[in-house]
Amino acid sequence: MKSPAGLLLSAIELDRASSIPLYRQLYLQIRKQILGGKMQGGVRLPSTRTLSKELALSRITILNAFDQLIAEGFLASRTGAGTYVGDEWESRGIADEEQRQPPRLSDLSQSMLSLRSSHFRGVSYTDWDPATPTSFLPSHSTYDTFPLAVWRRLMNRHLLKPTKAMLGYGELQGLQALRTAIAEYVFDARGIDCSAEQVVIVSGAQQAFNLLGMLLLNPQDSVWMEDPGHIAARIALQAQGAQVVPLRIDEQGIDIQQGLAECPDARLVFTTPSRQHPLGVTMSYARRQALIDWAAQYQSWIIEDDCDSELRYSGRLLPALYAMDRMARVIYVGTFSKVLFPSLRLGYVILPQALIEPFCTLRAVMDRSPPTLLQATTADFMREGHFLGHIRRMRALYQARQQALLEQLQQQLGGFFNITPVEAGMHLIAWLPPTLDDDVIARELARHNIHTYALSDYCLEHVLPPALLIGFAGTPEGQAQERVEALARALSKMGYLQAT
Amino acid sequence: MKSPAGLLLSAIELDRASSIPLYRQLYLQIRKQILGGKMQGGVRLPSTRTLSKELALSRITILNAFDQLIAEGFLASRTGAGTYVGDEWESRGIADEEQRQPPRLSDLSQSMLSLRSSHFRGVSYTDWDPATPTSFLPSHSTYDTFPLAVWRRLMNRHLLKPTKAMLGYGELQGLQALRTAIAEYVFDARGIDCSAEQVVIVSGAQQAFNLLGMLLLNPQDSVWMEDPGHIAARIALQAQGAQVVPLRIDEQGIDIQQGLAECPDARLVFTTPSRQHPLGVTMSYARRQALIDWAAQYQSWIIEDDCDSELRYSGRLLPALYAMDRMARVIYVGTFSKVLFPSLRLGYVILPQALIEPFCTLRAVMDRSPPTLLQATTADFMREGHFLGHIRRMRALYQARQQALLEQLQQQLGGFFNITPVEAGMHLIAWLPPTLDDDVIARELARHNIHTYALSDYCLEHVLPPALLIGFAGTPEGQAQERVEALARALSKMGYLQAT
Repeated sequence: MKSPAGLLLSAIELDRASSIPLYRQLYLQIRKQILGGKMQGGVRLPSTRTLSKELALSRITILNAFDQLIAEGFLASRTGAGTYVGDEWESRGIADEEQRQPPRLSDLSQSMLSLRSSHFRGVSYTDWDPATPTSFLPSHSTYDTFPLAVWRRLMNRHLLKPTKAMLGYGELQGLQALRTAIAEYVFDARGIDCSAEQVVIVSGAQQAFNLLGMLLLNPQDSVWMEDPGHIAARIALQAQGAQVVPLRIDEQGIDIQQGLAECPDARLVFTTPSRQHPLGVTMSYARRQALIDWAAQYQSWIIEDDCDSELRYSGRLLPALYAMDRMARVIYVGTFSKVLFPSLRLGYVILPQALIEPFCTLRAVMDRSPPTLLQATTADFMREGHFLGHIRRMRALYQARQQALLEQLQQQLGGFFNITPVEAGMHLIAWLPPTLDDDVIARELARHNIHTYALSDYCLEHVLPPALLIGFAGTPEGQAQERVEALARALSKMGYLQAT
Repeated sequence: MKSPAGLLLSAIELDRASSIPLYRQLYLQIRKQILGGKMQGGVRLPSTRTLSKELALSRITILNAFDQLIAEGFLASRTGAGTYVGDEWESRGIADEEQRQPPRLSDLSQSMLSLRSSHFRGVSYTDWDPATPTSFLPSHSTYDTFPLAVWRRLMNRHLLKPTKAMLGYGELQGLQALRTAIAEYVFDARGIDCSAEQVVIVSGAQQAFNLLGMLLLNPQDSVWMEDPGHIAARIALQAQGAQVVPLRIDEQGIDIQQGLAECPDARLVFTTPSRQHPLGVTMSYARRQALIDWAAQYQSWIIEDDCDSELRYSGRLLPALYAMDRMARVIYVGTFSKVLFPSLRLGYVILPQALIEPFCTLRAVMDRSPPTLLQATTADFMREGHFLGHIRRMRALYQARQQALLEQLQQQLGGFFNITPVEAGMHLIAWLPPTLDDDVIARELARHNIHTYALSDYCLEHVLPPALLIGFAGTPEGQAQERVEALARALSKMGYLQAT
């Protein structure tokens, strides 16, 4: 077939073993060529007899394909004069991607692109190859110890009957059974006395931060944030146009006096009182009370992010701010990402009564309740005692892992790092020699396939001495020595260790 | 125990069968009373000896509870003078909920609360009691025909090994295997030629609409929307401050001429070309081309919502706008809610190359990828041929259900309703006698436990004759007669049917 169209069509490849009928394969291929501009409007196709011979297809097959293409306007038939590509398929001048102007995005997304920290750029958690064992990323849990057999059994229970309750659109606030289980759990674990109606299930803490920002903040509203503090939460609030007031962290937690001096009427404070993220400080009782008093006086809000309070190894867990507050100024955010597993995508918000309906209305516009199956499984996991058992095991496991890693770090790198044990959480802070740049070191280590976070990533205005966040939850005790050896080798190669 | 504190404490109930230790139960109950303001600062507690006797607990138990309460600042011990509620627990004047000022919400949420239509207020889908069989809600699928045994088998495959890939934070864009399966599916089904890299998995179409609004719209930007049109999508875009330009629907679809006359430089158009929602019109080929030409000329965007294109019973499915457009102005949104099940919470967006990174950055701030387990199961369901088989079965089933319901409606209520069959989708339009108010009728029917939607709910500026949307997908053929009989009885009681 020598015509332009003929040459193209002779290149058509058909898969005779495919379950897709041949006439449909031919239809798809011709359509693709027309849509892709390879066959222009007005071009004449070879006759069905010719095509039949060249492609080794029956004429009926060719005619079936042509019929559909004609009906859809791709081809046109001229009686006695053959079949043509429809006139409307004149070349529209396929613009190269490079010749097109860059897309005009909203102001919001432009500022978002510039707000991105190295958490979303550079060394990203998702870049980490599961085959590479050496990682000290703070958010990295252990997974092989998760009781998957129990989880599977509970999940299967809900996969037996295809009902509206399990498959249809779910309760807007989230599954009642899960909200009840959470209300009972937080009462016992955190002293929070709330009803199941005050609990809203979300798809993770990050979604909660975004919804709360949308609910409470107008552009230019000020928010107190811990500095160093939670990066992703800050970006979520800044996305709503919030002006961040960074407050330093002292040995009792967030510096409220600084907040009162700089911006007493901030709209809200975002805080991690159980375990300050990333420094690990537990907010003192007196400081909690002062924060609650401020919120009451100024009618401001407190967003209490309590993402891994279960993972405490020593020291006392103080009551949640939510439990201590009697003026309904605290909004409590919890998540299952750290204590169960991250890909579950489940978290919860406990709201003062007056905020329930507005929050749920906003959520209904943005999204719906998370998958019912996962909520139902989590509810059973909690109600049947597996949750508390799992937390206890994880607590003991992580404490042992912290101990093993700490010993190795102090033995092998005690002259380089200055590390103290932590009471809670999933990472140690390893202070570096003060002249070094923690960001530079973290990036270099990443090129050696050793992944940590630099403390300076978390700092806005308050400059701290350089340090690395070294996660311990993902390093089994038996691997601590070899992983620290790898770290030491890398640091040595990088020229940071003195010859001894 | 006669003192105020004593009276309160004698009311304490302990569960001796509980796995929670008694000292902890006591601790929790006393703490609850102090936090709840029932025991004021400075109040003296009964002696441990008295409490031990009254509550039938050992003194050690009492002392353990007291020790923790003292350490946490709830109680204070005065040597030789007993134990008191800590002074700082002075009454803070527990404000009644009613006395408190209503919370000051963001402007965004205030406008959201007023934007709510009856979809979020009044007759809500979630109000519908699964035990009540008579419902014609358009979004209501059938669930008992979902192949749950197959689904369960595929899901269990992924629940065997607790790995980082399955339990850890997932790929930002969504699971590669699912994106690939979707790219292959849309090529065959919709003529869309894209790479897996252009596909982003979202937690449903509603999340996609919100993210796209955030990505592309500044406050006050104009958007063309079909009128009547998709309510939840409109509210999502209005939440970004968009100014809606409602365009009427004629027999070819959205009236572009009206758009060009009123607001030619709208930033984007939101459209449902496969099956206009709610009127059911299929956008003609020529109208599609005109819309694409407009978007290319004005560098505007087209959001193509293709939520149930699989459910077509007659007539030809035209190529997607995305497939016809060569200037990369179309963003395609698909969902599994209608063809699989709503509580799965999975959908997808197919983006022009230049929008992939900004969209994903925005999504990373807002949320993370949906649960990996559900993505992996859906990918397998598609790859192993179950998806196409299921669609074929559903198509045949819904066509038969439409037929049965239509016959009953025409037989029993043909003098009241004016109904024509639909080529696609999950509901019929039942036109009412022109003097009636469809909203009033829908609300009254709901009080008779018969659930439909009023067409006027979907209308902004263009007034249409009154009609009800009657869903057929949720009514098994064998139940069509009795359900229509119930509908007829209700209409008769309501006084709408002439005596014959």
